[in-house]
Amino acid sequence: MSNRPSRQAAESRRAFLKTGALTALAGGVLAACDKESTAQRVSKKPATDSDQSGGSMAAHPVTPVATNAAEDMDRMHEAGIKAFPAKTTGKGNQLLEPKIVGGVKVYELTARTLKWETSPGVSVEAWAYNDQVPGPQIRVREGDRVRVILKNELPESTAVHFHGLELPNEMDGVPFITQPPIKPGESFTYEFTVPNAGSHMYHSHHNAAKQVGLGLLGAFIVSPRSPREIERVDVDYVMVLNDGMHGYTLNGKGFPATEPLVAKLGQKVRIRFMNEGLMIHPMHLHGMHMTVIDKDGWPQPAPWKCDTLNIAPGERWDVIVDCTMPGTWAFHCHILPHAESPHGMIGMVTALVVQK
Amino acid sequence: MSNRPSRQAAESRRAFLKTGALTALAGGVLAACDKESTAQRVSKKPATDSDQSGGSMAAHPVTPVATNAAEDMDRMHEAGIKAFPAKTTGKGNQLLEPKIVGGVKVYELTARTLKWETSPGVSVEAWAYNDQVPGPQIRVREGDRVRVILKNELPESTAVHFHGLELPNEMDGVPFITQPPIKPGESFTYEFTVPNAGSHMYHSHHNAAKQVGLGLLGAFIVSPRSPREIERVDVDYVMVLNDGMHGYTLNGKGFPATEPLVAKLGQKVRIRFMNEGLMIHPMHLHGMHMTVIDKDGWPQPAPWKCDTLNIAPGERWDVIVDCTMPGTWAFHCHILPHAESPHGMIGMVTALVVQK
Amino acid sequence: MSNRPSRQAAESRRAFLKTGALTALAGGVLAACDKESTAQRVSKKPATDSDQSGGSMAAHPVTPVATNAAEDMDRMHEAGIKAFPAKTTGKGNQLLEPKIVGGVKVYELTARTLKWETSPGVSVEAWAYNDQVPGPQIRVREGDRVRVILKNELPESTAVHFHGLELPNEMDGVPFITQPPIKPGESFTYEFTVPNAGSHMYHSHHNAAKQVGLGLLGAFIVSPRSPREIERVDVDYVMVLNDGMHGYTLNGKGFPATEPLVAKLGQKVRIRFMNEGLMIHPMHLHGMHMTVIDKDGWPQPAPWKCDTLNIAPGERWDVIVDCTMPGTWAFHCHILPHAESPHGMIGMVTALVVQK
Repeated sequence: MSNRPSRQAAESRRAFLKTGALTALAGGVLAACDKESTAQRVSKKPATDSDQSGGSMAAHPVTPVATNAAEDMDRMHEAGIKAFPAKTTGKGNQLLEPKIVGGVKVYELTARTLKWETSPGVSVEAWAYNDQVPGPQIRVREGDRVRVILKNELPESTAVHFHGLELPNEMDGVPFITQPPIKPGESFTYEFTVPNAGSHMYHSHHNAAKQVGLGLLGAFIVSPRSPREIERVDVDYVMVLNDGMHGYTLNGKGFPATEPLVAKLGQKVRIRFMNEGLMIHPMHLHGMHMTVIDKDGWPQPAPWKCDTLNIAPGERWDVIVDCTMPGTWAFHCHILPHAESPHGMIGMVTALVVQK
Repeated sequence: MSNRPSRQAAESRRAFLKTGALTALAGGVLAACDKESTAQRVSKKPATDSDQSGGSMAAHPVTPVATNAAEDMDRMHEAGIKAFPAKTTGKGNQLLEPKIVGGVKVYELTARTLKWETSPGVSVEAWAYNDQVPGPQIRVREGDRVRVILKNELPESTAVHFHGLELPNEMDGVPFITQPPIKPGESFTYEFTVPNAGSHMYHSHHNAAKQVGLGLLGAFIVSPRSPREIERVDVDYVMVLNDGMHGYTLNGKGFPATEPLVAKLGQKVRIRFMNEGLMIHPMHLHGMHMTVIDKDGWPQPAPWKCDTLNIAPGERWDVIVDCTMPGTWAFHCHILPHAESPHGMIGMVTALVVQK
Repeated sequence: MSNRPSRQAAESRRAFLKTGALTALAGGVLAACDKESTAQRVSKKPATDSDQSGGSMAAHPVTPVATNAAEDMDRMHEAGIKAFPAKTTGKGNQLLEPKIVGGVKVYELTARTLKWETSPGVSVEAWAYNDQVPGPQIRVREGDRVRVILKNELPESTAVHFHGLELPNEMDGVPFITQPPIKPGESFTYEFTVPNAGSHMYHSHHNAAKQVGLGLLGAFIVSPRSPREIERVDVDYVMVLNDGMHGYTLNGKGFPATEPLVAKLGQKVRIRFMNEGLMIHPMHLHGMHMTVIDKDGWPQPAPWKCDTLNIAPGERWDVIVDCTMPGTWAFHCHILPHAESPHGMIGMVTALVVQK
């Protein structure tokens, strides 16, 4: 296995999603809903007084009106689930291949405004790198020489901070402290040797509450020279959490337009959580635990397990999931209004699909 | 000592609270307030200008009006403390004994609406399991065969997710993904062999921002087959944190109606924090540190100490307190408006009472 | 090196800041902005349609109006940076030297109201100890005998809780539970032997959402009898985070009136984060990682690294920074509206200045 274990798996996942996944998933979901196996569903007439053992229930009978409202709600919930993963225009966080110029990996980023569809029919104003929210995913290796050329086609000045990379001060991307602002119509070139491995980010550091809020952010992943055994995974997935101006999103999309994670039974999935928003998001995976290995790109002293991982703004946490349980597993922020409304699931919800 | 170390201690605690605790506590509180031991209280006349060393004070003299307002405030604070633990109708989080049917532990839950008294005179609309907020506490062992029968007497469909248990997909409780919704008037039976130990939860996973917010939640505690030495405690206490529709509550009640934890000097108390709300709650224990042992039911690589533990929605954290310091110790969320108002302590406040 | 490694370094830092730092810093900032080293700035005319590769850009041309607005914004951002560190009246968190009375370290605190300047021209109502926000920094050693005499010159009763210290119950500072409230015009004496080392706090525990919110808080640092090797640092810095009534502040001031941390290349800096506010603050240091050593004054089982540390209300986290990278490094809360507005950086922003 190579030291970029995720590449083949990621490609296979992308191919899968393009060709057969939607059908397979839809079938899987429906199949699951029809299964009753050890679970038994017992239909009864609406409850009558004699079924009820508490006085308070008498004041809240199950009326036909309530039942109809309940049916309406269920239909909306079902429609959301069946629409998942819903098609929208634009896909963020796509791997950006560098040009190699004299041994240097060169990445060109253009910052400009666009309309971004976060879920079917919902378009928002976005400021983005290369027309993607999140911006294109950059993956390099420790020790690589990297050049990032930013063209600013925004109506405001900007600058890029490589959040988590331990760069020389003049590459730090903070206007008036480490560089002049990059004015509208200007370009700026960052160049450095990649110093430290891990899950990092790049984003605007000028008028950033607005500029990052509108989408000027992306993942900057650095593979280590010597990967640890625990890093040898089948699927390597970046999940950028966000809130605020674009609503609650995972990789720039809200449910049902979020992207499912797909793996085969027995595979290992690495998830690189990154919070580019303004709120915490405790991400909860159903069915299997997550083993936390890295914080901000640095190994934890020892891996530890959880099923709900609290991720604060600016933090990155890397976890490994051993896909031991087949099925479609809900995976969502556990601040419930970030994940569900009376009309069904929304926002920060996706699924880990473990295929037999 | 058995492998369910908490049972005897819990029963003794319950008996204590029923018989003599209220009186003892009230006495303890008053006694403490009258003590001045090494502390000295020096009454003086209201400060005059000559006492003051800064100009800004002259603009804020201690007037008789301010003093009267201060006295009024103190009286309200004192009344709250003296009322603790205040009686209210209804008690949540009570241990539910299973029926044993052919070796299977069978739990029957009925979801319905009721009025719930969160603090004296304050009643809210609740949706609850078995008329309790939190729902009844379920305690089983790793490897047990368990059946949970849910009767839905609510005006909406519902479903139960066993948060933290690594169950087969069809037992995961997510409508339209793993099961059909349980419609008003219907029942659904979950059955499984308990896979993993730890402090887990059960709650609605349908229209959950509302249904969990209104009270459809409870603790699901799984004892390990082989408890660790550090788990051998005298008191095993579940503390469910909540906010939102019912206000700031611990186990469904707001101060002064919260339940004190009671232990004897030298005893060990395990506290299983669970956050079923929408906000973080950094719980602060006065006087003694907490040793954190588990996250989401999984042992931390090594225990670690703190006095303020931040608990995010969906998380569970288990801690051990060595009761080395006698007295009544405040124990509260350190987001201060969750714990105090100008009228006195409120919401997420209780006490750990360490008796000599 | 003594067991109070920070003293000389702190004095040197203070002297530095008084004498030459402002000039040096201003020069450093300007120098950095003029440097272009490996980075290249390419000025172009405003972008024209032919430069643009996406349709959405055509709808958002870089007009002269936008450019002027961008220039105005840049000027405001630059002015903020150049003003840093801005002078304001009043400085909190200053070391309070005790009187020694019969071997006891005696600290006198007077609580009263004042006007507090949080940033140039912005004054707020404050309730403070010894006219400082945060209150004076108290530094003692494990095992010291300490007496704290509080004079209450406020219009309300109050009391002091020593947050994190494991004191006898009657020294715990909770009115009506462990002591009577200290009424306006009264004094109260706390006396105890310091039981446990670490970064602790003292603050009001009466009507605390208001009283702490207005400034009745301070750092209480306890040096251990036997410092660990990792604690031998050159600079020992307390950073009290706050939000709410005084806005977003670090040690009682908002950017550009915050205080820079200054160290020499190769030195080690200990930062003791303390959150006295109502919100989380994930503090992000640019350029270098932080090694987390203590939580609430207790050593973590093993040190661990990060660049963004989430600090919840009531928590203290101690970190070590190895100053390996020269330059002026932004250091701020990563909830971006706590650190920046369209008018420039604000609130919870400072810099770590590493001098060659």
